[in-house]
Amino acid sequence: MDIVEKVGNGDVRAVARLIRSVEDRIPQAREAMKELYPLTGNAFIIGLTGAPGSGKSTLTDSLIAAFRKQGKGVGVLAVDPTSPFSGGAILGDRVRMQRHAEDPGVYIRSLATRGALGGLCAAVDDAVHILDAMGKEVIIVETVGTGQSEVDIMNNAHSVALVLTPGMGDEVQTMKAGIMEIADLFVINKSDLPGGQKLYQELLRVLQMTENYQSGWQPPVLMVQNIADPRAFAEKVEGLRDAFWEHRAILISKDLLKEREKRKLSVQFHNSLKETLLDPIIEDLTRSGRLDASLERMLAKEADPYTLAEELAGEYLRK
Amino acid sequence: MDIVEKVGNGDVRAVARLIRSVEDRIPQAREAMKELYPLTGNAFIIGLTGAPGSGKSTLTDSLIAAFRKQGKGVGVLAVDPTSPFSGGAILGDRVRMQRHAEDPGVYIRSLATRGALGGLCAAVDDAVHILDAMGKEVIIVETVGTGQSEVDIMNNAHSVALVLTPGMGDEVQTMKAGIMEIADLFVINKSDLPGGQKLYQELLRVLQMTENYQSGWQPPVLMVQNIADPRAFAEKVEGLRDAFWEHRAILISKDLLKEREKRKLSVQFHNSLKETLLDPIIEDLTRSGRLDASLERMLAKEADPYTLAEELAGEYLRK
Repeated sequence: MDIVEKVGNGDVRAVARLIRSVEDRIPQAREAMKELYPLTGNAFIIGLTGAPGSGKSTLTDSLIAAFRKQGKGVGVLAVDPTSPFSGGAILGDRVRMQRHAEDPGVYIRSLATRGALGGLCAAVDDAVHILDAMGKEVIIVETVGTGQSEVDIMNNAHSVALVLTPGMGDEVQTMKAGIMEIADLFVINKSDLPGGQKLYQELLRVLQMTENYQSGWQPPVLMVQNIADPRAFAEKVEGLRDAFWEHRAILISKDLLKEREKRKLSVQFHNSLKETLLDPIIEDLTRSGRLDASLERMLAKEADPYTLAEELAGEYLRK
Repeated sequence: MDIVEKVGNGDVRAVARLIRSVEDRIPQAREAMKELYPLTGNAFIIGLTGAPGSGKSTLTDSLIAAFRKQGKGVGVLAVDPTSPFSGGAILGDRVRMQRHAEDPGVYIRSLATRGALGGLCAAVDDAVHILDAMGKEVIIVETVGTGQSEVDIMNNAHSVALVLTPGMGDEVQTMKAGIMEIADLFVINKSDLPGGQKLYQELLRVLQMTENYQSGWQPPVLMVQNIADPRAFAEKVEGLRDAFWEHRAILISKDLLKEREKRKLSVQFHNSLKETLLDPIIEDLTRSGRLDASLERMLAKEADPYTLAEELAGEYLRK
């Protein structure tokens, strides 16, 4: 039985092996991904993002439990778009979600930058497809960060939740701007901290400005209090789970799920084009020593990067 | 007199116009950048990064004053890698630095994402070149964010300072991992807040692990207290300014400035290649409607993104 078939049957070791291969961008993995593609498209893909310290991992952990309560198979991708100088954050995430480690209905995987520029986004795309093909009904993609990579990663999701916490300064509100535009749900975590109500009011005010929201869906703002009372916390998170399902129902009833799929595919296709068209050229330039030679010429001001890039385009591109 | 000459003469209006053009990625701007290129390579380029709320803008404002005290011409690029859902943050920065607005020795410009994927990094590259060509001796590139785009932007700098603040949670330390690897100086801002000493100790511990630092430069950790006493604050920031100069002196004496230039050029060339090779193909696919047709085929599972990208590569690439 080949790896694609094994993944399709939910074989966890095959899944782990294939994810490792897509992380390393191994050419054979690409062939497997092609074969796997028809098996995808069934999962409900959820995105969860927020600043560091906003409590995403704890939320994810409880969300897993909430979906498991409904008998759903859950896959989790914890994505760290910064490079792995220290493995601390990722290790921490895994420890926090440890209680699900023995549950065969849950598959948790961390993905971190391995150095290759832009390689992470493509790896996340593939990993989502793999968890989808293995039969997970709900896939949670959790990521930190505030840059374009975060927006790209979140574009993989059908429903995106942004997690905020009180007292992180007004700047946070504008900071997360790129994400705010694509968020479908808002969670104010640790909402009992000072500033919780202020943040809530502020969010509502901003959300009212975005009224011509295509789907007619008014993004809900969920307040989740500190986890002093685990049971109350779990209940709140079940509310979040239900809000995700509700959003999905709206997407389907308004025929918008297809739009989301298209947005997702569009990002993936862009990544795929970059990897197929641009990366081999850069590899070729590196291997042949021309990249270094070009850099030396630019350093000596004998050439500029714009003209050199155009020369190379003439060489590598047809027409 | 054409725009390149005007920029070379430090004409502020020409500079503003050209930066606007590179922000919009106008083809003519590219031609101007080619001509401008030989005028670049003289500025000392400083990178300043840190989480939102860490007080970067206030630091930048004081750094401007500190460099002005030495008679240096200063250019500032405040880069926001999130999209401009709200202009608040940028406006705030500008207000904070308002006191330099009348000083002809200072040029301040904000750059924000305008939607084009990856376009911002290329715009920052170009804007740095423009400020360099206009004769600014010190260029400060200030950015927020934690993703790959931040690392890319900071790779433009000869010396990079990471601004941290106490009490942002341990997670921040690992979060900023990608940046920690390229930071040459560390600033603990608001160091009198609770946790300041702990953060200091932690940082030193992490920095000791990175001992085989190529240049023999031991990244200093500067403690900057709250700005209750503006004069004490200004003095601290002058210490930071001197640390930047010291780092530059080391880079020059160890012949490492060239390495930094190479790193900078390497990122810029990569951006330039992407823009010259990949973007026109995507534009072409969009214009001809083939992008949409491909997305529809993928949605219908008639094709997968990997195979489609390969087909297109065969079509657009020579060999």
